[in-house]
Amino acid sequence: MQRAAALVRRGCGPRTPGSWGRNQSSAAAEASAVLKVRPERSRRERILTPESMNPQVKAVEYAVRGPIVLKAGEIELELQRVSAPACALFPQVMALCTYPNLLDSPSFPEDAKKRARRILQACGGNSLGSYSASQGVNCIREDVAAYITRRDGGVPADPDNIYLTTGASDGISTILKILVSGGGKSRTGVMIPIPQYPLYSAVISELDAIQVNYYLDEENCWALNVNELRRAVQEAKDHCDPKVLCIINPGNPTGQVQSRKCIEDVIHFAWEEKLFLLADEVYQDNVYSPDCRFHSFKKVLYEMGPEYSSNVELASFHSTSKGYMGECGYRGGYMEVINLHPEIKGQLVKLLSVRLCPPVSGQAAMDIVVNPPVPGEESFEQFSREKESVLGNLAKKAKLTEDLFNQVPGIHCNPLQGAMYAFPRIFLPAKAVEAAQAHQMAPDMFYCMKLLEETGICVVPGSGFGQREGTHHFRMTILPPVEKLKTVLQKVKDFHINFLDKYA
Amino acid sequence: MQRAAALVRRGCGPRTPGSWGRNQSSAAAEASAVLKVRPERSRRERILTPESMNPQVKAVEYAVRGPIVLKAGEIELELQRVSAPACALFPQVMALCTYPNLLDSPSFPEDAKKRARRILQACGGNSLGSYSASQGVNCIREDVAAYITRRDGGVPADPDNIYLTTGASDGISTILKILVSGGGKSRTGVMIPIPQYPLYSAVISELDAIQVNYYLDEENCWALNVNELRRAVQEAKDHCDPKVLCIINPGNPTGQVQSRKCIEDVIHFAWEEKLFLLADEVYQDNVYSPDCRFHSFKKVLYEMGPEYSSNVELASFHSTSKGYMGECGYRGGYMEVINLHPEIKGQLVKLLSVRLCPPVSGQAAMDIVVNPPVPGEESFEQFSREKESVLGNLAKKAKLTEDLFNQVPGIHCNPLQGAMYAFPRIFLPAKAVEAAQAHQMAPDMFYCMKLLEETGICVVPGSGFGQREGTHHFRMTILPPVEKLKTVLQKVKDFHINFLDKYA
Repeated sequence: MQRAAALVRRGCGPRTPGSWGRNQSSAAAEASAVLKVRPERSRRERILTPESMNPQVKAVEYAVRGPIVLKAGEIELELQRVSAPACALFPQVMALCTYPNLLDSPSFPEDAKKRARRILQACGGNSLGSYSASQGVNCIREDVAAYITRRDGGVPADPDNIYLTTGASDGISTILKILVSGGGKSRTGVMIPIPQYPLYSAVISELDAIQVNYYLDEENCWALNVNELRRAVQEAKDHCDPKVLCIINPGNPTGQVQSRKCIEDVIHFAWEEKLFLLADEVYQDNVYSPDCRFHSFKKVLYEMGPEYSSNVELASFHSTSKGYMGECGYRGGYMEVINLHPEIKGQLVKLLSVRLCPPVSGQAAMDIVVNPPVPGEESFEQFSREKESVLGNLAKKAKLTEDLFNQVPGIHCNPLQGAMYAFPRIFLPAKAVEAAQAHQMAPDMFYCMKLLEETGICVVPGSGFGQREGTHHFRMTILPPVEKLKTVLQKVKDFHINFLDKYA
Repeated sequence: MQRAAALVRRGCGPRTPGSWGRNQSSAAAEASAVLKVRPERSRRERILTPESMNPQVKAVEYAVRGPIVLKAGEIELELQRVSAPACALFPQVMALCTYPNLLDSPSFPEDAKKRARRILQACGGNSLGSYSASQGVNCIREDVAAYITRRDGGVPADPDNIYLTTGASDGISTILKILVSGGGKSRTGVMIPIPQYPLYSAVISELDAIQVNYYLDEENCWALNVNELRRAVQEAKDHCDPKVLCIINPGNPTGQVQSRKCIEDVIHFAWEEKLFLLADEVYQDNVYSPDCRFHSFKKVLYEMGPEYSSNVELASFHSTSKGYMGECGYRGGYMEVINLHPEIKGQLVKLLSVRLCPPVSGQAAMDIVVNPPVPGEESFEQFSREKESVLGNLAKKAKLTEDLFNQVPGIHCNPLQGAMYAFPRIFLPAKAVEAAQAHQMAPDMFYCMKLLEETGICVVPGSGFGQREGTHHFRMTILPPVEKLKTVLQKVKDFHINFLDKYA
């Protein structure tokens, strides 16, 4: 991954010195006009340099927004949206919360007003513009707990265990920040899947924790194999103290949905090995494969009985950014943490309070996500139609993408059981690998750069997520509308075939 | 401060075990009902405990939301709002951005619609619900740069040096995170004022950096004295590498506004000592004293000539939470960073990108703050009236608070030249100090607890901000409406007199 890191830096590099030079001179020019001075270009050694900066931050890699995306500008960002918007109720409630005068307007449905009033009554000064409690607005945490209890068929959730966050990323990095300790061989080890969502490796690097990789089984639809967890934890014990196990289900970037049996095995393993479980379940509403169902770690944990349900420490994460609403810009999220030591609860609230509170608009967004219309409410039918259509389309696109990729020689794509991405394996000819090395690029980075240059399509190289040595992949979102996606897939197919010819 | 730290933990402690116990048992009860199991209370040693947790996080103190505020519940949070809302344009533009269908409604002023359209056109999918670029929406960064250029009388600002953040706190902790490095005696030292806003000590502790205190001169209206900076940096060099100088102007909690001369001295000092300057200027619109004016560090830096303007590394911070709008719940903010090493720019964007982007609604909020109505625009007159009245009231309340406190025997209050707080010194009788020690509380914590219990008024003890050994203070916001504030001040006066009697 060193090479990728270098690329990230280089990727940012060329963009900035250029613009920086320009800014300085234009700034200088205008300044002299204004202030009658003529800046000399001579400058002393800076205080903050690549040599003097925080080495953990320097080591951070974040390919999802790395050179490819920088080069592509906003392309991928626009694709990140599920639809615009997925459901009318959402912007209606948000607008009512934002500008309460609208509560008198007849052009808003009653249940939208009811939701807005409930949220506003719980906000300081009846406004999204006031700070909330650090843990989040009480009634929103109650709605989250009620949602979890419904989702898990009655397994109780307690609002006191719910923490509203600035997207799921914030919750994940906050919990990891509290968990990491020790030095040398007793430094905290954090187990993450490979391929992973790069937030994990980035935060682990920031915290100077030890990344412990366990590999998902590509030959078996990216399934999680507990024997691989055993292998990873045993090897890790030689050089660190494995204390945390991160699971992403449904998988990002790999799109697998874990079976109930697999989750039970993982929980038993965490119990055996005394690991704190982090369950990244932000795609819990995004399951497409008819033979798959989402099972929450919390529910399975309780069903395994008190020895587990009263012992295993578990944090699970959700967000407004995925599901069928995909309101990522509001940065709403929550985490539910169970079996947490009572004093640690205080420590967690203290740590959250340093940032005062999550955006209150994001908290309101979270409330709408966990509190959808029910039969009898004015918005119910339209909402249900919209939800059906968004999820139905995603399912169609998941199948379409899998099928089309698998028709292309030199591409193999596992079923997209859930989440929002395809992560096909690409078999690159030796000549392409050499060409990439000549450009000091990871082979799949080279492939993705060429794809971007030749087609304008932005996908993220597998090397940014981690992959078994010698294998190559890319991550592509399935969010564009069906017709647009078909065109994109056709273009990738044509590009790939030409690429194979070129480097045969 | 150790005692305060203990208190913060204790303060959080009692609240949680109780509720935790309750949650567990109720959870267990419901669980058994649902799942026909009877949880045993026997539990193994937890993985995450006060002993095993991250010691830097454990050492964090954050009195602004410590035991007093926890005890007071939402009281202080509600007081944090400038007004509800300070200006009609704000919620109008936010509502239009949130629910673009409203752009057709005749009940919104044209300039509100113009602003909303401009923001939406720059957002992915024309929606606040999409991710933005990690550095923030381009046109909003352009508006911020234009605002700074106007504010600084033509000193140029470049959008490429503007980074939108999740409130100012996020920007401050991000820059500090990049700056901190080294081990042992070469660990980065960060100079902060005492009294300080506790975000600084909290982040320094999280990052395991070295806090270097310089004391503001209470006898001289909390002025910053450069000789004190010299003393602090010289002493610090024995045990760390002082690399960063943090300034809060106007001051929080101390409310002083720095003179231009003082800022020039500070900049010269930073240049001499090779310190990276952090200028926390979130209260730049909150200057009340007729003999004070806000001078930005950026402007003074440029006026000092090229040797400074092209060498001194400066990050300055602003926010939507203060000023005359006080929209803190949206968590909007920006930082302008000048003379940053080109590669560090890439590093900074990479670090910001790990959290994807600041809340887009907060970015829109920031745009409204830096882009107020101008003469000729429909909202201009109402907006100007509202702004006048909010700032006029704050100025009245600042004077009122100073005057009333100074009538009370045993209280001395410096002029509130700016910001939003009074930080009066309280002279506590020896018996009160003994009583506090008997309760294992800092004397001013004891005083504030009694005040809260007897009057329901929530103020934050000076020990949470830092103060010279043996002196005692509290911080009180001046945000409540004039009449409410008068009552509050009268109650504090009566309480204080009784308190002196009681412990005479």
